[in-house]
Amino acid sequence: MSELERVLEAVDAGLDGALERLFGLLAIDSISTDPAYTASCRKAADWLVDDLKSVGFDATRHDTPGHPMVVAHQDGSSAEGPHLLFYGHYDVQPVDPLELWHTQPFEPLIEDTPAGKVIRARGAADDKGQLMTFVEACRCWKQVTGSLPTKISIFFEGEEESGSPSLIPFMEENKTELTADLALVCDTGMWDSNTPTISTMLRGMVGEEITITGPSLDLHSGMYGGPAMNPIRVLNRILADLHDDDGKVTLPGFYDGVPELSDEIKQQWASLNHDGQAFLESVGLSEPAGEKGYTVLEQIWARPTCDVNGIAGGYAGEGFKTVLPSKAVAKVSFRLVGEQDPVAIQKAFYQHINDRLPVDCTVSFKAKDGAKATVMQVDSAPFKQAQQALSEEWENDAIYAGCGGSIPVVGHIKSILDMDSLLVGFGLDDDAIHSPNEKYALKSFHKGIRSWVRILDALSKNDS
Amino acid sequence: MSELERVLEAVDAGLDGALERLFGLLAIDSISTDPAYTASCRKAADWLVDDLKSVGFDATRHDTPGHPMVVAHQDGSSAEGPHLLFYGHYDVQPVDPLELWHTQPFEPLIEDTPAGKVIRARGAADDKGQLMTFVEACRCWKQVTGSLPTKISIFFEGEEESGSPSLIPFMEENKTELTADLALVCDTGMWDSNTPTISTMLRGMVGEEITITGPSLDLHSGMYGGPAMNPIRVLNRILADLHDDDGKVTLPGFYDGVPELSDEIKQQWASLNHDGQAFLESVGLSEPAGEKGYTVLEQIWARPTCDVNGIAGGYAGEGFKTVLPSKAVAKVSFRLVGEQDPVAIQKAFYQHINDRLPVDCTVSFKAKDGAKATVMQVDSAPFKQAQQALSEEWENDAIYAGCGGSIPVVGHIKSILDMDSLLVGFGLDDDAIHSPNEKYALKSFHKGIRSWVRILDALSKNDS
Repeated sequence: MSELERVLEAVDAGLDGALERLFGLLAIDSISTDPAYTASCRKAADWLVDDLKSVGFDATRHDTPGHPMVVAHQDGSSAEGPHLLFYGHYDVQPVDPLELWHTQPFEPLIEDTPAGKVIRARGAADDKGQLMTFVEACRCWKQVTGSLPTKISIFFEGEEESGSPSLIPFMEENKTELTADLALVCDTGMWDSNTPTISTMLRGMVGEEITITGPSLDLHSGMYGGPAMNPIRVLNRILADLHDDDGKVTLPGFYDGVPELSDEIKQQWASLNHDGQAFLESVGLSEPAGEKGYTVLEQIWARPTCDVNGIAGGYAGEGFKTVLPSKAVAKVSFRLVGEQDPVAIQKAFYQHINDRLPVDCTVSFKAKDGAKATVMQVDSAPFKQAQQALSEEWENDAIYAGCGGSIPVVGHIKSILDMDSLLVGFGLDDDAIHSPNEKYALKSFHKGIRSWVRILDALSKNDS
Repeated sequence: MSELERVLEAVDAGLDGALERLFGLLAIDSISTDPAYTASCRKAADWLVDDLKSVGFDATRHDTPGHPMVVAHQDGSSAEGPHLLFYGHYDVQPVDPLELWHTQPFEPLIEDTPAGKVIRARGAADDKGQLMTFVEACRCWKQVTGSLPTKISIFFEGEEESGSPSLIPFMEENKTELTADLALVCDTGMWDSNTPTISTMLRGMVGEEITITGPSLDLHSGMYGGPAMNPIRVLNRILADLHDDDGKVTLPGFYDGVPELSDEIKQQWASLNHDGQAFLESVGLSEPAGEKGYTVLEQIWARPTCDVNGIAGGYAGEGFKTVLPSKAVAKVSFRLVGEQDPVAIQKAFYQHINDRLPVDCTVSFKAKDGAKATVMQVDSAPFKQAQQALSEEWENDAIYAGCGGSIPVVGHIKSILDMDSLLVGFGLDDDAIHSPNEKYALKSFHKGIRSWVRILDALSKNDS
């Protein structure tokens, strides 16, 4: 039996232990976006430090003005292979509305579903389950062979779901310690439950919280309705004007740098036989709402968007309150592709708002960290080797895919550390990663660990 | 010393006791719009029953499917005078945002301000302080003369701030018990702190809560942004289209039944020398936002409006959550004037929404009780007598004014009980009645009691 086969066997034999460890991490309510959970984020970081130490890593918690980073290093069995940097995040999304969960979000459990067993918990797929596939792969290599197959550094952050305010300064300050030959990122999904996937295009992001203030205090709409400007009305106008009737974003210059797809990619994507209709129907929709003239897959992978992620103003609770509010707030995000410039788009958005601001209203902005889109060069050896390793594990050809989401760290890894990233993940479309009842397929977790075992084996045979 | 003078003297002498009783009522957090305060509403009703009994009323709490009604009766000193029905409401508005209060909303106190002493508490002006001016006036008549000057019935409800769902059925079922010769309503304001005011025009109201549903669950805006319709975007469009650039409401037929003001009324209002600029500046605004071509006073008293009183969708809490929400909700109210038809306007609003609803969105409605505007006939004896009594108390001519707010009960008193209403109130523009730090001027309370003493004296000299 080869070394690789023995490590894979150890993965299968140790699955229960791996699940027990994952459940320990999932039980920590490390919601980064809400200051009430600061202690939980620290607890998750400490948990990871301890766990990485148990695999032989030299692991350290690094405190930041926000949530801590975890950095760990371990040499490989020889000095020959490449130095790999694995990135993941231990923070999770908020859980509201809690009443829509049918389990407790931080009491992980295995559930039988028609599609197979799943791990049910907030963070199961995004990103705790995913990052632990890599840690467990390292553990099995260590256990069977006594060492890792190549030198590995690990970098976990705890602010991915809250705009990563500490990420860029931390990467800049710790550039030397973090730099390796290639980054591995496990925060993406598979094409479907049988098709392993390397994500090679990621949408970028510009996010802004805007607050419109009208009157200096909340007013009675009977006493002031008419002459007093209502900031909700102003906000509605600003937001309604962001799209035209064809679903296009109206900001001047918004589509600058948006590439049309090559015929080759169009063909490759068409050959995936994506059922856009079924994709929409699974979430209760029937018609693509994006730009006319593009398939559903193209709208997600290759076209930029604008969405209002949150809006609030006045009294929206139980009953009715005839208030004319002083303030109204919206959180707006733009998904970027190709060479779209986050700074230019932010500027155009500010201009769009200022152009629509009546004399008695003011606006304040709170920016979420922005990032350009990422497009990988897929013709390098590591991409080919990872594709081969994944295809062997899943007994199905691994594909290169786009990804509608934004993983800003990939851009920072390129710009600050000058490294390419290999994005391999095992999430599925129905994981509900930002919604109630998030899950991660048990198969994703199990074969995810096995996939990393194989990828590490393949990559370690490269000269660094 | 006349009987009237002795009663007025008793008001002055008993002011501390009256305040103590008012504070007892203000300490009850009877927020009708939130089911969490149901017990408090009942407590306030019971408090009023006990207090009315202490004045010699035959008082009863009537339970309803919502909050209780309080009805009380007491004969006058002779059978000659008119039978009066006094209406008020003991429920109050919610207090959020609580952090903007500088006192506890349900711990009433007297505060010294540059404009004089005020009673600070939720409900101080709307409507507990106002209704107690009448109860205390009755108490003083009773105390000094041993009886009321004329037959009085009292009708308090506890759902005025939450759409009065039980009001119409209760009034219809208890028509005989509630019917009198004239209704007195104390839920309005004064022109300014020295000018007593009888409100003779009230705007009506149509209120609707609309919920737009797009996807069947909350989605990740990276994975679905583009093809998935965002219900906030749909809601923004619907609401933005309600006004044109001149501040006019765009619903077809909306202005049907809106009268142009007579030259006489225009002149009367102009003679009030209302400073629209100062009115707006006091709440941080500088330009009237309503229909062009009308003064601020006309926009409030004589023009219909549309306001969004609340909006919510997605994640608007601390931080950023890239959710594409399943639902978005708004609470919209229209203030009506003249002969505008609430049913026709509701219908036009539904049509406006349906016309803008894309194929994958649905809408649900929850109506707030609607009411036509009210315009009083001011040439009857009671109006003249009340105007005279008020002018004497305040040593300044009482005026007939419009009122931007809606008091639907006045319409129901007319349509169900076939009675006219005399609207006298002592609120001031800066009472912040639906906002943090609500107050009621101590002078309003004190001279309010004295005003009712005089009005009761004047009206009791009419034949019924």
